[in-house]
Amino acid sequence: MSGSSMGRIFTVTNFGESHGPAIGCVVDGVPAGLELAASDIQQELDRRRPGTSRFVTQRREADAVEILSGLYEGRTTGSPVALLIRNTDQKSRDYSAIADKFRPGHADYGYFTKYGLRDPRGGGRSSARLTAPTVAAGAIAKKWLAREFGTVVRACVTQVGPVSFPVEDWAQTGANPFFAATARGEPLHEAAELLDQLRREGDSIGSRLRLEALHVPAGLGEPVYDRLDARLAFALMGLNAVKAVSIGEGFGVCGMRGSENNDEMTSGGFLTNHAGGILGGLSTGEPIVAELAVKPTPSIRREQRTRNEAGREVLISTTGRHDPCVGLRAAPVAEALAAMVLMDFALLARCAR
Amino acid sequence: MSGSSMGRIFTVTNFGESHGPAIGCVVDGVPAGLELAASDIQQELDRRRPGTSRFVTQRREADAVEILSGLYEGRTTGSPVALLIRNTDQKSRDYSAIADKFRPGHADYGYFTKYGLRDPRGGGRSSARLTAPTVAAGAIAKKWLAREFGTVVRACVTQVGPVSFPVEDWAQTGANPFFAATARGEPLHEAAELLDQLRREGDSIGSRLRLEALHVPAGLGEPVYDRLDARLAFALMGLNAVKAVSIGEGFGVCGMRGSENNDEMTSGGFLTNHAGGILGGLSTGEPIVAELAVKPTPSIRREQRTRNEAGREVLISTTGRHDPCVGLRAAPVAEALAAMVLMDFALLARCAR
Amino acid sequence: MSGSSMGRIFTVTNFGESHGPAIGCVVDGVPAGLELAASDIQQELDRRRPGTSRFVTQRREADAVEILSGLYEGRTTGSPVALLIRNTDQKSRDYSAIADKFRPGHADYGYFTKYGLRDPRGGGRSSARLTAPTVAAGAIAKKWLAREFGTVVRACVTQVGPVSFPVEDWAQTGANPFFAATARGEPLHEAAELLDQLRREGDSIGSRLRLEALHVPAGLGEPVYDRLDARLAFALMGLNAVKAVSIGEGFGVCGMRGSENNDEMTSGGFLTNHAGGILGGLSTGEPIVAELAVKPTPSIRREQRTRNEAGREVLISTTGRHDPCVGLRAAPVAEALAAMVLMDFALLARCAR
Amino acid sequence: MSGSSMGRIFTVTNFGESHGPAIGCVVDGVPAGLELAASDIQQELDRRRPGTSRFVTQRREADAVEILSGLYEGRTTGSPVALLIRNTDQKSRDYSAIADKFRPGHADYGYFTKYGLRDPRGGGRSSARLTAPTVAAGAIAKKWLAREFGTVVRACVTQVGPVSFPVEDWAQTGANPFFAATARGEPLHEAAELLDQLRREGDSIGSRLRLEALHVPAGLGEPVYDRLDARLAFALMGLNAVKAVSIGEGFGVCGMRGSENNDEMTSGGFLTNHAGGILGGLSTGEPIVAELAVKPTPSIRREQRTRNEAGREVLISTTGRHDPCVGLRAAPVAEALAAMVLMDFALLARCAR
Repeated sequence: MSGSSMGRIFTVTNFGESHGPAIGCVVDGVPAGLELAASDIQQELDRRRPGTSRFVTQRREADAVEILSGLYEGRTTGSPVALLIRNTDQKSRDYSAIADKFRPGHADYGYFTKYGLRDPRGGGRSSARLTAPTVAAGAIAKKWLAREFGTVVRACVTQVGPVSFPVEDWAQTGANPFFAATARGEPLHEAAELLDQLRREGDSIGSRLRLEALHVPAGLGEPVYDRLDARLAFALMGLNAVKAVSIGEGFGVCGMRGSENNDEMTSGGFLTNHAGGILGGLSTGEPIVAELAVKPTPSIRREQRTRNEAGREVLISTTGRHDPCVGLRAAPVAEALAAMVLMDFALLARCAR
Repeated sequence: MSGSSMGRIFTVTNFGESHGPAIGCVVDGVPAGLELAASDIQQELDRRRPGTSRFVTQRREADAVEILSGLYEGRTTGSPVALLIRNTDQKSRDYSAIADKFRPGHADYGYFTKYGLRDPRGGGRSSARLTAPTVAAGAIAKKWLAREFGTVVRACVTQVGPVSFPVEDWAQTGANPFFAATARGEPLHEAAELLDQLRREGDSIGSRLRLEALHVPAGLGEPVYDRLDARLAFALMGLNAVKAVSIGEGFGVCGMRGSENNDEMTSGGFLTNHAGGILGGLSTGEPIVAELAVKPTPSIRREQRTRNEAGREVLISTTGRHDPCVGLRAAPVAEALAAMVLMDFALLARCAR
Repeated sequence: MSGSSMGRIFTVTNFGESHGPAIGCVVDGVPAGLELAASDIQQELDRRRPGTSRFVTQRREADAVEILSGLYEGRTTGSPVALLIRNTDQKSRDYSAIADKFRPGHADYGYFTKYGLRDPRGGGRSSARLTAPTVAAGAIAKKWLAREFGTVVRACVTQVGPVSFPVEDWAQTGANPFFAATARGEPLHEAAELLDQLRREGDSIGSRLRLEALHVPAGLGEPVYDRLDARLAFALMGLNAVKAVSIGEGFGVCGMRGSENNDEMTSGGFLTNHAGGILGGLSTGEPIVAELAVKPTPSIRREQRTRNEAGREVLISTTGRHDPCVGLRAAPVAEALAAMVLMDFALLARCAR
Repeated sequence: MSGSSMGRIFTVTNFGESHGPAIGCVVDGVPAGLELAASDIQQELDRRRPGTSRFVTQRREADAVEILSGLYEGRTTGSPVALLIRNTDQKSRDYSAIADKFRPGHADYGYFTKYGLRDPRGGGRSSARLTAPTVAAGAIAKKWLAREFGTVVRACVTQVGPVSFPVEDWAQTGANPFFAATARGEPLHEAAELLDQLRREGDSIGSRLRLEALHVPAGLGEPVYDRLDARLAFALMGLNAVKAVSIGEGFGVCGMRGSENNDEMTSGGFLTNHAGGILGGLSTGEPIVAELAVKPTPSIRREQRTRNEAGREVLISTTGRHDPCVGLRAAPVAEALAAMVLMDFALLARCAR
């Protein structure tokens, strides 16, 4: 499997760069017979789209998806579903001043070392824009999981810098610009003030997300190496800017006792869910619960020291259109990644006996 | 790639169960010409071996490795290296009382749901014993990385329940029973007391590990999906009992600003390493730093409620030989997993241009 | 790796259907720094294009390729190269009469059994039109192989039904409508007469191709299972309508003695090439020589018995625009497939020691 | 997937060398619940074993298989099944005279070029001995296919040099030393005389095999690239000494017309099986029929010219214990390979809709 692909049966191959002609993906392994329309995918893309509030990048992309293949009369045929999103608002001039400089906190230096050259326009392949094809592919997985098992995959932002959002009403994630699962005025207001201030200061902030998957059948995952938690960690840590992934109690387990952390069962099922829905690499049927740490957007206006390709120290200030809190748009991407992993394992589980 | 395999070029396929005749692995993709002897592998296995102190399981396994293939006159030939470890101290009677019960905190229920049957002897495939082949394979990767780049991969325990160990002297990890990188008497003493008490109470405790890889070349990783941090997270989250993985500042980034978290560069290199050696999915050349949360051993003597295969609620008490703190033996496994990932990407990097 | 992908490092993922909006592929694993333009790909596509003579399908497709990603300033960046070809001349009405019938010699029955539904428009996914993305991907492999090793991959038609073409002048393959490596009037004339007659009779004819790869470095291939000859056979047998693949002496070896078939060496190299450039699954450095048997186009106007989806016996006559000898356009596809395989192994060989 | 592995779900990883301590394989992806005993595997190994008649190598190997993992109470558990076969009759002295010479017709030169060193003992990794693990893995696939679908996979030798064997009674393949599906005295006698003569002359001979798979469900295969015929060709061309693979009419199609080659259907099914059971890369439900060309054993006693590792021309005569007709023992291997491919696709087919 190539580096730009994910999944063994439900396999997504991602392509494109921030400022190339187009981005997209090929989704292979979609079972035949799934009803699918571009609108199913578009509604997920719209949740991730830039330019929807003053707190995210002002790049204006319609992110209109075209389904190029794999459908006949509104149903999938078992052939690969290719999805295409044209780039329309590439402002390459924004980046010309930094073309030969390694932006701090970015992949630039690694790319240059690895490939000997790099596409500096908008971060090229390393841009968070490449999460759009992931969201598109994930929309298919979400629809299939919902049909097969009633699975719901959802994510919300629970922290923006010093501001915490309680998780109390998932319907609110679409109603505020922070993907917060709350309607409480105070934290939402504080976050808005913080982001406005950061924009004035040319700085950015980190965030934390919570991901849940409900109604996941028990027994998904391959026990040694290709575990469900391992593959979720792979998928979620691979999301741009993510620096930590935890399942269930996460780092909290370091201080816990077995008698406290073990989830007892009765004939009615599990009594608790410290495990976050995964034990021994396999789903338990309880809700899968994960948390992600998203670092602050590395592109900031404040001047920083760096070096250029020639090895000389220079100053850099990134003046393009950037999300001050890149995690704000990460929720739909995290959902998509989790759905891709779950669908792949659900198909693999058909081969278990 | 099958579920029991890891790696695209350097591919390790793991087999075995806790109480079957043998465990082992096939290591494919080892470049020809590497000097290799069983002793190179044995010394790593001995670091993970059970029964070495009163704080780990008292199961007595020599874990003697036999190299079955892939060598000629002391060097690898490019053919798969098959490694075999016989199980010698299987006490299946320990497990008969719980054969049809789902042990809390264990994979039992997931296995039963997935496969319709399960091997109850010592946890079968889900036993931490299956980390031994991983350590064996990792020994090859460590040797190769050291020869190629001088890479050092090391891990230590930094926390056992409420007790924290400072990371101040890596040479100490082999000198105390906690894999702690310190010689300070106080925390070591506290940990010993805690574990003795837990054994008396029939309980267990969680722990935290720190993993480092020094002298890793820059540019390792495949930027979209198959990133270095993603694959490290996959490998490490796949380690038994791990519930969280973080890179660099980890969850700390949620509260940080970009101006604070970005690692500035000068002509001399990076000034800080908040990123933990990975940016945009590629290594930066700085030390790779990761942390793992390891849950308390789920096998405890204290009685807990659970259900059996027939769906009835029962009480369970696990009386076998178990590690009260399973994380204590995780350090060599984490090193092995990280080395496997790094070697695989180092080989893949040869194809980048 | 998904079913629509080929290659471990140089990985091509193919998508599309005959009458969908577009066909194409994502080519991952192209090393950075290769000069590449759409014209490099277009010239190969033009060799395979329909409608270029009266002996091939009269479907009019420009087969204009668009490079969607992976390039910066005329060079590959190491990111996936996505290639798009719009379908423009889909005449779905041609197929309406046969939509629920299983065309003899076609994949229809298998698709229906496997997927429970199928796209009947022009054969859908099973159409030979899907070889166009393969040709496009192969163009990249050919260019890279030529730059790295001076490799030349070439194929010609050596037989059309009863007419044989000698292989004497490779420059002629582009100068006659049969991809024959000869300028001799007699066989070319005979073949033209045969095909005209077949068109009148509503029938089709089989053919044979010869494939060669010159200047291939020795040592390509992975000895057990993933051999060079095995992978070439995989690639070439996967070409639509191919029913046999042979290397070197092929079926001729059944009657040969070892003393006759073995290729002796001297200090100057191999004295013969009965092996067709591959021994023990590895290239020898001698020209790789393979032969393919291509069955007659199954779509014929002559009436045949078949059944429909409801299980009833019906008569069928395929009146669309079809190649009377589908092998005529297979030469560029065979070249592309061989180039893809060779490039993949050439990259893998970098990891051998 | 590594080079020594085959299959996407049912994945076999092969290890070992002719004269190392052991050979074997890890079979991952075996569904749970299959009854399996070492005897199931042993009976297939015994069909391939050396030393069973005067016409095959006189190396004496019991080829006793040990199942190391994946079983519990006589059934598979879904965990990898590791199979071990100890080498017991390695006579390395046989090979010392040729250790630095490239044997004509062998992989030696390719290995040396690729890896920079090689294991000269008995051909090392390239020995036909490595087909034993394949046979062992195939035994599992055969048993599973028989249970699921009643599938029968069988192969016989149809030609040894100038001698042809009719295919008229499959029960005879175990009753004569040629794996011929006939009891006719004449061709069997001729073949015996030929092989005795070849032994006296220190020469060898090529052969042809026929492979059949009956009761294969329709719809197996993945249409583009990973086709059933493509993967069978991969598997069978990867068998040592095979130089050609054909399906159905094979090279015969080159001279056939569509009206002749197409298999018509009626409500009762297919009327003919020119396609050899595969159309468009998918099984049709008709018997799968393939043919293989096996080259004469390259190891012959007759002197031949070659070069050594230093580049000098030398004479070589291979005096070890070799099969004068390596194809004689290929039938069980071809069956095993075909069964592995069919089982893998049968599992994948569960994910098609």
